[in-house]
Amino acid sequence: MSIYIAIDIGGTQMRAAAFPLNGYEPVAVQRVPTHNPDISPQEGLVQLIESVCPPDETLISIGVAAPGPLNPKTGVIYTAPNIAAFRNFPIVEYLQEKFNVPVFLENDANLAAVGEWQAGAGQGHTHLIYLTISTGIGSGIISDGHLLQGEGGIAAELGHVTVIPEGPICGCGQPGHLEAIASGKNIARWTKEKLAKGAESSLQNAKKVTAKKIAKAAYKGDDLARKAFERAGGYIGLTLANFLHIFNPSIVIFGGGVSRSGDLLLDPIKRSVQKHVMSPKYIDDLTITTATLGDDAGMIGALILARTATEK
Amino acid sequence: MSIYIAIDIGGTQMRAAAFPLNGYEPVAVQRVPTHNPDISPQEGLVQLIESVCPPDETLISIGVAAPGPLNPKTGVIYTAPNIAAFRNFPIVEYLQEKFNVPVFLENDANLAAVGEWQAGAGQGHTHLIYLTISTGIGSGIISDGHLLQGEGGIAAELGHVTVIPEGPICGCGQPGHLEAIASGKNIARWTKEKLAKGAESSLQNAKKVTAKKIAKAAYKGDDLARKAFERAGGYIGLTLANFLHIFNPSIVIFGGGVSRSGDLLLDPIKRSVQKHVMSPKYIDDLTITTATLGDDAGMIGALILARTATEK
Repeated sequence: MSIYIAIDIGGTQMRAAAFPLNGYEPVAVQRVPTHNPDISPQEGLVQLIESVCPPDETLISIGVAAPGPLNPKTGVIYTAPNIAAFRNFPIVEYLQEKFNVPVFLENDANLAAVGEWQAGAGQGHTHLIYLTISTGIGSGIISDGHLLQGEGGIAAELGHVTVIPEGPICGCGQPGHLEAIASGKNIARWTKEKLAKGAESSLQNAKKVTAKKIAKAAYKGDDLARKAFERAGGYIGLTLANFLHIFNPSIVIFGGGVSRSGDLLLDPIKRSVQKHVMSPKYIDDLTITTATLGDDAGMIGALILARTATEK
Repeated sequence: MSIYIAIDIGGTQMRAAAFPLNGYEPVAVQRVPTHNPDISPQEGLVQLIESVCPPDETLISIGVAAPGPLNPKTGVIYTAPNIAAFRNFPIVEYLQEKFNVPVFLENDANLAAVGEWQAGAGQGHTHLIYLTISTGIGSGIISDGHLLQGEGGIAAELGHVTVIPEGPICGCGQPGHLEAIASGKNIARWTKEKLAKGAESSLQNAKKVTAKKIAKAAYKGDDLARKAFERAGGYIGLTLANFLHIFNPSIVIFGGGVSRSGDLLLDPIKRSVQKHVMSPKYIDDLTITTATLGDDAGMIGALILARTATEK
């Protein structure tokens, strides 16, 4: 049997799956911790791939989803958050030498967008925005049936646009980015600031205040927790209205942990979008929905990358 | 001889030019006021086209650049600023019936981007942002060699993104858009507010304070006038940094009246971009420059639209 291998590299774990020529059902799946005291992430990656690729099968190509920034054209990961060993790592060259097949690299959020577009919530659309609201905020854009990559492959960083010019400093170092205001980490940061100032809330006695805990408290009617999501959703909606003016898509898909909090975040986002678009034409036929592939979106995207890039 | 006709519709005047099969040198050019007390803009447009199209020539097709919003797929202008007669006007159908040739419609800023890309400052690039800073702020995007249109043809409205959430109200009705802060009209508005508050300036005795006059005063060393451009350039640069994160282009081209004020605006824009990009990778190989086709960019773009759309 001929197979493709799709890899999803994260700061905590690396996952690999082998897929047949068609369809999205893997024939083998494995995951390993990214950080292993005994071997380097590079060696761990090779072992992981070997574990889903029995010797009697013909490997056609490998698709890799990795956290950015990276260059899909040169196949080099510039920096991978929480994986120091992958700094300026020519992963495509490395894996091509090890496995002697074509290897293709792309940003994980971009590939999640491709996955949702071809096999998830975005099927049938040609203009799509995918936003993943998690610890950070990532995104991928399909414009007229093409993945938006930019000249150097570092486009579609929608989490890194200024929302409040003098706002909190983002992980990237710039002030007031969407990610610094509305990511899961920053929903928790805002809530903790209010708690420290004595805000009344069921979370006052919580040991560790996370976006997940805040979501739970909000569903139980906690006012501060609700406000935290209202505020984040309001800013996401305002920024999304800008993205609608820029891309005029037919669908917006939300992925990531915070988006799994359901209507808690989606409702204020939708209200805010409606308030901030400059013409109803931008939302008349627009679908705003959540991702359907969950954590597999990036890997499915990596599979699609491997298949389509090999065909070329 | 076979010819293409390109039209550029503006609130003050309408221009038409006839072009041969190749090249960008017109064989005939005419312009008429958009508003004529004797005939409607529709009739004026037909007469204008006839005036550049002698009967012994074979008309292949017509490309039309019009101020948006409009739908290039249905060929309908929704609203044209300062041309009430063109509200919900099916201009493509109208001209096709009159001239019995294919007619193609696109937003004028989008076509100016196409013009600069194919025949102006952007030649050889495949990822391009065109921003025209004039009375308003318009834009067009070339992404991987494709004009960004969006699902309904109303994408690439980069002037309508929020820069200051509680900022001045934009012409579109939304608060704090880039256009409401940094367009020529709003550079003048800001300056007039400072003058009304008694700011020291050579413009205190000016009859009408326009962006052009402010530019002249700035070049003569007027402090308030310099500040007006510094401020606008600062916000344009901040927003442009966001656009670089979104599109990762290899060139940014500035067109429009205010951009003709030269370094007065470009210098603060460049400084601000440098300050606000999250990684030098976004500007390392980036060209920031001014348009070379001037007022002809939209018409050249309309010509290219007519040529390429007819070929399809």
